[in-house]
Amino acid sequence: MIRFDSDYIEGCIPEILEALQATNQEQCPGYGEDIHSLHAKELIQQTIGNSEADIYFLSGGTLTNVTVISSILKHHQGVITASSGHIHTHETGAIEAYGHKCLTLPSTDGKIYAKDVDAYISEHYASDVAVHTVQPGLVYISFPTESGTLYQKKELEELYSICKKHDVPLFIDGARLGYGLSAKTNDLSIQDIAQLCDIFYIGGTKVGALFGEAVVITNDKYKKDFKYHIKQHGGMLAKGRALGIQFEVLFSNNNYFNISKHSIAMAELLTEGFIKKGYSFQYEATTNQLFPILSKAKQKELEKEFAFQYWEPYDENHDVIRFVTSFMTKKENIEYLISKL
Amino acid sequence: MIRFDSDYIEGCIPEILEALQATNQEQCPGYGEDIHSLHAKELIQQTIGNSEADIYFLSGGTLTNVTVISSILKHHQGVITASSGHIHTHETGAIEAYGHKCLTLPSTDGKIYAKDVDAYISEHYASDVAVHTVQPGLVYISFPTESGTLYQKKELEELYSICKKHDVPLFIDGARLGYGLSAKTNDLSIQDIAQLCDIFYIGGTKVGALFGEAVVITNDKYKKDFKYHIKQHGGMLAKGRALGIQFEVLFSNNNYFNISKHSIAMAELLTEGFIKKGYSFQYEATTNQLFPILSKAKQKELEKEFAFQYWEPYDENHDVIRFVTSFMTKKENIEYLISKL
Amino acid sequence: MIRFDSDYIEGCIPEILEALQATNQEQCPGYGEDIHSLHAKELIQQTIGNSEADIYFLSGGTLTNVTVISSILKHHQGVITASSGHIHTHETGAIEAYGHKCLTLPSTDGKIYAKDVDAYISEHYASDVAVHTVQPGLVYISFPTESGTLYQKKELEELYSICKKHDVPLFIDGARLGYGLSAKTNDLSIQDIAQLCDIFYIGGTKVGALFGEAVVITNDKYKKDFKYHIKQHGGMLAKGRALGIQFEVLFSNNNYFNISKHSIAMAELLTEGFIKKGYSFQYEATTNQLFPILSKAKQKELEKEFAFQYWEPYDENHDVIRFVTSFMTKKENIEYLISKL
Amino acid sequence: MIRFDSDYIEGCIPEILEALQATNQEQCPGYGEDIHSLHAKELIQQTIGNSEADIYFLSGGTLTNVTVISSILKHHQGVITASSGHIHTHETGAIEAYGHKCLTLPSTDGKIYAKDVDAYISEHYASDVAVHTVQPGLVYISFPTESGTLYQKKELEELYSICKKHDVPLFIDGARLGYGLSAKTNDLSIQDIAQLCDIFYIGGTKVGALFGEAVVITNDKYKKDFKYHIKQHGGMLAKGRALGIQFEVLFSNNNYFNISKHSIAMAELLTEGFIKKGYSFQYEATTNQLFPILSKAKQKELEKEFAFQYWEPYDENHDVIRFVTSFMTKKENIEYLISKL
Repeated sequence: MIRFDSDYIEGCIPEILEALQATNQEQCPGYGEDIHSLHAKELIQQTIGNSEADIYFLSGGTLTNVTVISSILKHHQGVITASSGHIHTHETGAIEAYGHKCLTLPSTDGKIYAKDVDAYISEHYASDVAVHTVQPGLVYISFPTESGTLYQKKELEELYSICKKHDVPLFIDGARLGYGLSAKTNDLSIQDIAQLCDIFYIGGTKVGALFGEAVVITNDKYKKDFKYHIKQHGGMLAKGRALGIQFEVLFSNNNYFNISKHSIAMAELLTEGFIKKGYSFQYEATTNQLFPILSKAKQKELEKEFAFQYWEPYDENHDVIRFVTSFMTKKENIEYLISKL
Repeated sequence: MIRFDSDYIEGCIPEILEALQATNQEQCPGYGEDIHSLHAKELIQQTIGNSEADIYFLSGGTLTNVTVISSILKHHQGVITASSGHIHTHETGAIEAYGHKCLTLPSTDGKIYAKDVDAYISEHYASDVAVHTVQPGLVYISFPTESGTLYQKKELEELYSICKKHDVPLFIDGARLGYGLSAKTNDLSIQDIAQLCDIFYIGGTKVGALFGEAVVITNDKYKKDFKYHIKQHGGMLAKGRALGIQFEVLFSNNNYFNISKHSIAMAELLTEGFIKKGYSFQYEATTNQLFPILSKAKQKELEKEFAFQYWEPYDENHDVIRFVTSFMTKKENIEYLISKL
Repeated sequence: MIRFDSDYIEGCIPEILEALQATNQEQCPGYGEDIHSLHAKELIQQTIGNSEADIYFLSGGTLTNVTVISSILKHHQGVITASSGHIHTHETGAIEAYGHKCLTLPSTDGKIYAKDVDAYISEHYASDVAVHTVQPGLVYISFPTESGTLYQKKELEELYSICKKHDVPLFIDGARLGYGLSAKTNDLSIQDIAQLCDIFYIGGTKVGALFGEAVVITNDKYKKDFKYHIKQHGGMLAKGRALGIQFEVLFSNNNYFNISKHSIAMAELLTEGFIKKGYSFQYEATTNQLFPILSKAKQKELEKEFAFQYWEPYDENHDVIRFVTSFMTKKENIEYLISKL
Repeated sequence: MIRFDSDYIEGCIPEILEALQATNQEQCPGYGEDIHSLHAKELIQQTIGNSEADIYFLSGGTLTNVTVISSILKHHQGVITASSGHIHTHETGAIEAYGHKCLTLPSTDGKIYAKDVDAYISEHYASDVAVHTVQPGLVYISFPTESGTLYQKKELEELYSICKKHDVPLFIDGARLGYGLSAKTNDLSIQDIAQLCDIFYIGGTKVGALFGEAVVITNDKYKKDFKYHIKQHGGMLAKGRALGIQFEVLFSNNNYFNISKHSIAMAELLTEGFIKKGYSFQYEATTNQLFPILSKAKQKELEKEFAFQYWEPYDENHDVIRFVTSFMTKKENIEYLISKL
């Protein structure tokens, strides 16, 4: 079985295992105070071009989202998100379980736009019954989105500008950040990302690490007390080194970006293959996720040898299917898949 | 600096790194459905002698405690715990953040006893104003306790019997389970533990793993829907293999017990050293945590070369100090420490 | 200013004030154990034809909804509701603040239908990633709905049947129950309501009381421990008599139904008036809420003398407006309003 | 049966019923925007000598406590309270249900002192593991306390000064405020109270109203968005007039203070009676709650004719008993009770 169902099906980049090996006998203090975590923070600060940013490592995406969001919101506030946002659709109500409503904006491409966010917040405060509804306290977007799409620089600038106008912070879920930044259609750098929001996270789990995400807080207002929130959510590993070492490796030798580029190259190869064989796509995704439309017959045939993910129905005989490449995807597997299309 | 401040200061047992290396390129499904997680579950089922037990792997102790406790309690219920219980004292209010009160019983040795639990629950239901107070819905204990003490088999049998009498489940926090089971004063086997509670967890983070804890649910009543709770709390690693592989190793070749014994042997050596040098102890701890009483002067002297943890005040000139050994503690370091006492 | 903006703009039926006066010096135990509360419960049991039902009095609708819903759901569960449901739109996220997600079904008439609920629940359990999403644990409907529409008996039977098929309880928000039962198009009795759900509430605030709602629990499974939940939410009045006396009056002498009929008669008079003057309606509401479409000019004219509520936009020059009658609405005010249409 | 078991056993002062009667047909906007609520706010502002204070009316004490506390705290914060504090002991975990831990200070007289609060907060921030524990975010006291004791002006000044030093707000639960202010041993005015905390509430339920409490926010920092919190907790009555009218009456003609004085006079009479008959008291309570020590035999004898409340055990043959007087307690009943002592 050759798997294309996600980008978390393999282990991690070999350099991480080597580093874990090399440091295994070191005695380090716990809870992120070890030298590897401190070094990894510096490396990320340098990478994003902000030496004042606060950086923390957490073990996974859902945990990171709920920790960030609940560190910012007060009880009467909710988080604006695309209706397709991961926090709304695939985190078992983690945000609500911590007391906060997802305030959804309809979205067909996974993105939300400055004008819609502006309208939503303005209408809230204009309403006679504002206090009978949840106050928007944060805007959440993902880059790339759950549909594999990307915000263009201009779109993100407009969105962040609206957020600042309303004094509502912007949080970017970068579970697949590396893949977004490496896409051909992308015009944002990681430095841009760091400047165009108040807080974001750099995904490790899906981009080369065994597990782990790096939260980056650039707005001073949200730095204070963040560690309490990590600990309260159970996100503070006793052996924080296990996360620090991984990000130390990822942000050394340009590893994070190199492996992202590999994944994108593989996705492009596969995209070309689909196009050549006459398939069309549901979303214009240019990152490491493809959403081709496949007949049910073709799916049945392929699933004997390949793992992929049903995404949503298309018509009676076709579905939208998700194929995902990773930092470890092998070219020969892409070519073999194309040969079977 | 030689560290004795905790049992999470080193990495993991070498066999784990080898296994991560050997499996790194395997393609596995995510979220704990991989063959390593499945195999690890079987190994643990065999070890505890219960092939029907449900077993899940989570990334850390606080996360595990809040996930288990919130999976069982309803909104109006709280958890009975020793006043020294980790959930009450060192988890940043994680249990309360999820809506549940810690109902504390005073404790001087870290343990709670059947008769006190019985009295507490009985008094609750006998009260005219029971509904004005939180209903006890679960009993939490740790084995070993936070003070390094152990429940004797008879004590645990009595406690569990009271829990069953009141239809209140018993949950055992086994963050340092291996060390407890390996102590000379212990008369409980892991099979006993599995039979004398409804749910417990086997600590990995402090006992040889890089990170990770294994939840074991033996009472059918609490098995249903547990995975929803793991996901909601952000405890479900996408690369569940990273946890599965670690427990596969720990529960192969008797590793978990062998490394625990090593740690205990080192702790015993250190205990003898303290006794020979005329020190006394605050708690009768026979696991891998020692609580000797040290003068402030001695502390000052030792802290130039050793890391250890201030625990609590003793008198004007002395404090209770915690020294901890681990699966990786070196005999020469113990001997060197003793030479400096 | 003559007000038609809601049904909570006047005080209460005079009999309630008389009863409060007559009982004022009585010494009663608190928290709902007084003889008036006990008597009111009996009267309601008789009215609904179920002497085993548990009945509790709470001070308001939002409090009642969140208390009922959180008494039933576990942390990983959410509540299915129409997208227009009061709990989703106008309770400041009370349900989410207590940890539960509103699982919305799209609705244009305020109602949700058996087949849609069936599909939603079935799809949840059929999904590969069910545990990544919130488990549906309860179905919430309002009768009448927020749009003034009514479930027909057949619809409610079908809906409840689906709920039972999936073992998911049904909760009916009856904030305006009296008005629904008294509508000409209604074919449900209060006894039917009591049999076609697991738990519902009889609204007092909007139907003749100064404040207060009566929760009726018919399914034994949800009776246990309900008082803890009331107290935890702050819904248990120390002087429970204040609620008991009101419901004692409302359910004596057929008061509750008589005043509801008056309100409906007034609404019908007003409806005829609108129709005669050539207005059309957005919703086919036959209870005490009307939703006529008014030009902006007409609104401007009317608001000099009348209070009414903007509901939603209709077209560039028109809006949907809500007019509401109550148990105390005067016929001459209706006639005067009609004269100005 | 003559009841002395609480101060919520009778209805309300007659003037309130008269006012409800007189205003019953008025049409008022809902949710606290009616003229009576607005007038009541002005009357309270005048009474406390602060025309800038924000004032809100809620239906009961538990609801008020949780609304105030959750409006101030962030997720990682808890509330410091005496171990005997109502929020910790008798509100079914309402504070925890909303996510916040009660951080208890031991107390024998129901009070907490500046030096203890200072020590607690200082130790929190001095700890190496501060982030593993709940951050103190608010101090809660009750005046009078649950044991009927009173803070002296100097004590409250010191306490508030410490709160300001640590930038932690002070909240006073005034469920029985009137009785405290009217006690002979009291040296605080209501104006003092308003100046020596950030937020407090004036109890109505136990002091002459049918139900209702008035929250007073004097610190600007906590005024914003408070209405969202009231609504979210279900504390916003649709017919807010019902609360406004009651407080309008209570704060007209010095009613609130006059009825409090009556209750205190009755309590003093009863205290003298107990003393004359040779009883002693457990707490030096000078408000409307007495805590005499009664033999079990005497209790048995008295409970044929009188209702009173068991408070706590004293010795094998005696218990501490609570007797409470109210705004409506009759002198002849006190005299009759004394005759039976």
